[in-house]
Amino acid sequence: MISERLKKQFIHIVGSENYLDSKAEKLVYSYDATPNYQAMPDAIIVPRNTEEVSQIVRLCNEHKIPLVPRGSGTNLCAGTCPTEGGIVLLFTRMNKLLELDEENLTATVQPGLVTLDMIQAVEAKGLFYPPDPSSMKISTIGGNINENSGGLRGLKYGVTRDYVLALEAVMPNGDVIRTGGKLAKDVAGYDLTRLFVGSEGTLCIITEATLKLVPMPETKQTMLALYQDIEAAAKTVSTIISNKIIPATLEFLDQPTLEVVEDFAKIGLPTDVQAVLLIEQDGPLEVVARDMQKIQEICLAERAVSVQVAQSELEAEALRTARRSALSALARLKPTTILEDATVPRSEVAAMVKAINEIAIKHQVKICTFGHAGDGNLHPTVATDARDHEEMERVEAAFEDIFAKAIELGGTITGEHGVGMMKAPYLEWKLGAEGIAAMKAIKLAFDPNNIMNPGKVFAKESRKRVVVSR
Amino acid sequence: MISERLKKQFIHIVGSENYLDSKAEKLVYSYDATPNYQAMPDAIIVPRNTEEVSQIVRLCNEHKIPLVPRGSGTNLCAGTCPTEGGIVLLFTRMNKLLELDEENLTATVQPGLVTLDMIQAVEAKGLFYPPDPSSMKISTIGGNINENSGGLRGLKYGVTRDYVLALEAVMPNGDVIRTGGKLAKDVAGYDLTRLFVGSEGTLCIITEATLKLVPMPETKQTMLALYQDIEAAAKTVSTIISNKIIPATLEFLDQPTLEVVEDFAKIGLPTDVQAVLLIEQDGPLEVVARDMQKIQEICLAERAVSVQVAQSELEAEALRTARRSALSALARLKPTTILEDATVPRSEVAAMVKAINEIAIKHQVKICTFGHAGDGNLHPTVATDARDHEEMERVEAAFEDIFAKAIELGGTITGEHGVGMMKAPYLEWKLGAEGIAAMKAIKLAFDPNNIMNPGKVFAKESRKRVVVSR
Repeated sequence: MISERLKKQFIHIVGSENYLDSKAEKLVYSYDATPNYQAMPDAIIVPRNTEEVSQIVRLCNEHKIPLVPRGSGTNLCAGTCPTEGGIVLLFTRMNKLLELDEENLTATVQPGLVTLDMIQAVEAKGLFYPPDPSSMKISTIGGNINENSGGLRGLKYGVTRDYVLALEAVMPNGDVIRTGGKLAKDVAGYDLTRLFVGSEGTLCIITEATLKLVPMPETKQTMLALYQDIEAAAKTVSTIISNKIIPATLEFLDQPTLEVVEDFAKIGLPTDVQAVLLIEQDGPLEVVARDMQKIQEICLAERAVSVQVAQSELEAEALRTARRSALSALARLKPTTILEDATVPRSEVAAMVKAINEIAIKHQVKICTFGHAGDGNLHPTVATDARDHEEMERVEAAFEDIFAKAIELGGTITGEHGVGMMKAPYLEWKLGAEGIAAMKAIKLAFDPNNIMNPGKVFAKESRKRVVVSR
Repeated sequence: MISERLKKQFIHIVGSENYLDSKAEKLVYSYDATPNYQAMPDAIIVPRNTEEVSQIVRLCNEHKIPLVPRGSGTNLCAGTCPTEGGIVLLFTRMNKLLELDEENLTATVQPGLVTLDMIQAVEAKGLFYPPDPSSMKISTIGGNINENSGGLRGLKYGVTRDYVLALEAVMPNGDVIRTGGKLAKDVAGYDLTRLFVGSEGTLCIITEATLKLVPMPETKQTMLALYQDIEAAAKTVSTIISNKIIPATLEFLDQPTLEVVEDFAKIGLPTDVQAVLLIEQDGPLEVVARDMQKIQEICLAERAVSVQVAQSELEAEALRTARRSALSALARLKPTTILEDATVPRSEVAAMVKAINEIAIKHQVKICTFGHAGDGNLHPTVATDARDHEEMERVEAAFEDIFAKAIELGGTITGEHGVGMMKAPYLEWKLGAEGIAAMKAIKLAFDPNNIMNPGKVFAKESRKRVVVSR
């Protein structure tokens, strides 16, 4: 609870128009894109600059008030749900592109900047910012950094972490620190930059970031490979890479996903095949042509029933957009859409796809699977209804089995969505008690009062690893 | 001091042949490649596996005995000098290439493996491990990871950090943890992998690493661009990159360095020009040819007096080897060679080179400058004699000015050599008291007894920032 006296202090910092605490406003920020998580904040504060953030953090630390930084709330791990109340720190007013440095190939941004807005500004200069989470039309860079967002181009280009060169951050005690620089090399002390990327708002509040850009690839080609055998599609993925070709994009969609996406996007996707791979290569013209030719041969050798190359950028963009809309399309099916993010070494994609289908049968749930196959990052998804408790139990049991299998195959419980509230109970499966202890030590050292997004990453109770047979 | 009883316990763990404490043996490990730092360890222990390391760490933690992990000791920041005595943990017996996974493009290695041995094994499979520190013939992967080593290919390919996917590490309490995996994407908790890379042995002992490999570039071309104007050479660097070409290598050598290197390597380097750029591009044939053509034009437009393309891989390799031998060549001049590592945004390379020359005149010291210009990572070097205290004072004053200038230009005190003992007094200049406080909090949380490479990274006293005029 925030006392009247404290409320006045907050308003003194940001102005009354930037302090929101009506019931309606609190309701709006009581949830994010993650189904089944909701909790009311005590207030929403919209800071305008780093100094204001620092003052707010100091007050919160003094009064032990939870702070949840939030961009657009598009995360899928309940990372911005204010589970323990407190303040939602909303970055809509800190949304500027501060600098685009064409000599050093960097962009310096405020956290509230919408990802696509930045990408478009960068591309207008012939430069390229590769991380492209599916939510990029509305997600913010700050959110991307806090969650270490991935996207469709992770295989060749890496994830958000690989593009963050420098950060300004407000520490839990209100200190403002700067990490890194416009530097290709910097080993002055521990790599706080990368420790903060993906820390989900639990260690600090990020108030500015300098991002690495690369030259825009000259050209790009897109193809669809169609399969009647789902495991043949999955197998193709590792064959392409072990042939030493790294495509820019290597996406997998199974038949149920295709059907739903086609119904949503209506661009003529095949719905009578068991799976497709959406493959893109970018780079110099000659190289793209050569790689695409080779990839086509590999697909056919791996029993693709046909390979279709997009004939225009318009057609290619339609395919990409359709893929990006998979979650929205699936979300239309039923009231609750639960999308997971288990990730395995890419050599295990075929084994994982097979396991997911077996687990679906075992628990009698319908799982649509799509995802970044080149990264081993799959998104098995269930359309369900949270009010159907019996089905929800089966869904949860299925996902537990999927997590266990992913870890058994050398994988992880989350490739790009983050831990948040949602996966916290499973984190120990991946890290062991000792790994969790090491991470908790950092959290406690930075944030002894546990004001920074409390309840995220670390669970009060871990799930038992042994899945009880049902 | 290690009691007889404790010595017996160590010997019980590793066997007497792996516990060294004769005076001669201690002397051998009392220093590393960094001039002017020496301290005697109490013993050297050579573990054979992770379990032994864990047991040793537990004992050291219990008895508060400093532990200094060491590969080949090639670092240049006194990172492996046992400044506070204790045990040097020598990884010569944990030097295996455990796995080369051609499907996932990874190599799993023990820390004592020599970098070049791994690179050769990887290249034999048509794969590529880009980080190539100049010391790679003798340096170990464990040392590279602890120091986050760079090299000549950092501009295009990044540094060691960008190739570490997973680690096994022994924590200061003896816990063995595993971070990451053979995974392109993994956001399960904080990024301990990258926190440990570059932590200089102060947070944990690394006992195994899984490294990312990439396909071997098809071809490579090498050229030398010659300049009579040193700043024109520096200016060329940022012009190439702002033309959206990212060469694999973009090295700078000034005239004094050229002279010394040619005298050492005798391969016909020009010594009558003020500076050269050694430029390499790799990739598909067409792309390399096109980029090299464009780079050549840029060099000439930026007033290169001539551009020479290597006519064979033999000639190219001779040029690269000559560049890598710069430190060895300079080391022949005088008893003490002090090589620095200040790094700036690449747009500031010309300003930095100019400043270094002005600083040399101001303090009447002869500075040879070479380095990874494409990364903004320069190695101003002074050949001197540590016994000449008056000159050493001037050398130190000059380097203080260089650090101050690098930071003023948005740079850092160390790009790839690490902080160690040597740069610890200057770390606060880059990070501020608040940044240091954040890093110290991590150190204290992990290692409350300060047994892990104590005295490194964090200085007992920071240097005053204001350089007193002399």
